[in-house]
Amino acid sequence: MPEQPSRKGPNLRVVPEGDNRPRLVCEDCGFIHYENPKVVVGALCTHAEKILLCRRSIEPRRGYWTLPAGFLELGETTADGARREAKEEACADIDIYALLAVYNIPRISQVQLIYLARLQGGYAAAGPESLEVGLFAWDDIPWDEIAFPSVRWALHQYRDLGGQTEFAPRTNPPGEWGDL
Amino acid sequence: MPEQPSRKGPNLRVVPEGDNRPRLVCEDCGFIHYENPKVVVGALCTHAEKILLCRRSIEPRRGYWTLPAGFLELGETTADGARREAKEEACADIDIYALLAVYNIPRISQVQLIYLARLQGGYAAAGPESLEVGLFAWDDIPWDEIAFPSVRWALHQYRDLGGQTEFAPRTNPPGEWGDL
Repeated sequence: MPEQPSRKGPNLRVVPEGDNRPRLVCEDCGFIHYENPKVVVGALCTHAEKILLCRRSIEPRRGYWTLPAGFLELGETTADGARREAKEEACADIDIYALLAVYNIPRISQVQLIYLARLQGGYAAAGPESLEVGLFAWDDIPWDEIAFPSVRWALHQYRDLGGQTEFAPRTNPPGEWGDL
Repeated sequence: MPEQPSRKGPNLRVVPEGDNRPRLVCEDCGFIHYENPKVVVGALCTHAEKILLCRRSIEPRRGYWTLPAGFLELGETTADGARREAKEEACADIDIYALLAVYNIPRISQVQLIYLARLQGGYAAAGPESLEVGLFAWDDIPWDEIAFPSVRWALHQYRDLGGQTEFAPRTNPPGEWGDL
């Protein structure tokens, strides 16, 4: 058996010169891996008072329902990212009309920007990261099978808006930080 | 002279298996460096109708005036980050009361969240990243020495609110993407 290297990539935790926090550094080449919080963008999309949900085909939370959302890519605006995710996960074209919420999940260093949007033509279909997609009336939402707390927050906060379109974006419910 | 390695860290651009975009990969150890957009958090802080500005002691734009703002750190909420930046750059304690704007600077893959806040006790002083700080009445703002376009956007959009505290956050002015 060849000897396996015990380390791979930046995994030495040190405070670089001129910095004030520990960062992951590669022992071999000195590369400093600055880790940053990640931005998740998504949309709560409606058509005829029904809400678009996607059943996840991937982990985490495979089989559970979520809003179309995912990591913002380099060079992309947050609204463009939310549109891309709706297209990728639900084959949907959407018209964004408001920012529903900015959620913080500090445990996993995530900032989530969730927009409100209308589904063009009411059309949606499962993309590769979805097992199926559906348009749900409020009473038909599969509450016991929601993928993440922030999906539940977004659904309730949207409902509570009662149709307002000019409002301060919502944030985490008091004391809630996204733990499952 | 010892031979210098021609490469250092992840700098081979390839599409990893199961991915759909090129990423920077280390030739030596295979480490994949996923680059992500960065979150900047800051605050437009007021006291007695004057606005807090900081004159930068560091590049880029050393000597120019900005709002206290900087990169969100791991494990931090966006509001906590804005409070930390006000403390670091202006030795100021602030009370956040609204989200003024979400700006996108896609050229440098930045998402900026700028809050509105009140300066506790009207106190501010230069931190290590500031040459000086000041509280400016609208007509005294050093418009020719503003560090970044988004600082100018925030100032004008705050002014245009006319004291509203419940509003949809502002975004980039049409067609503006933060180029100096």
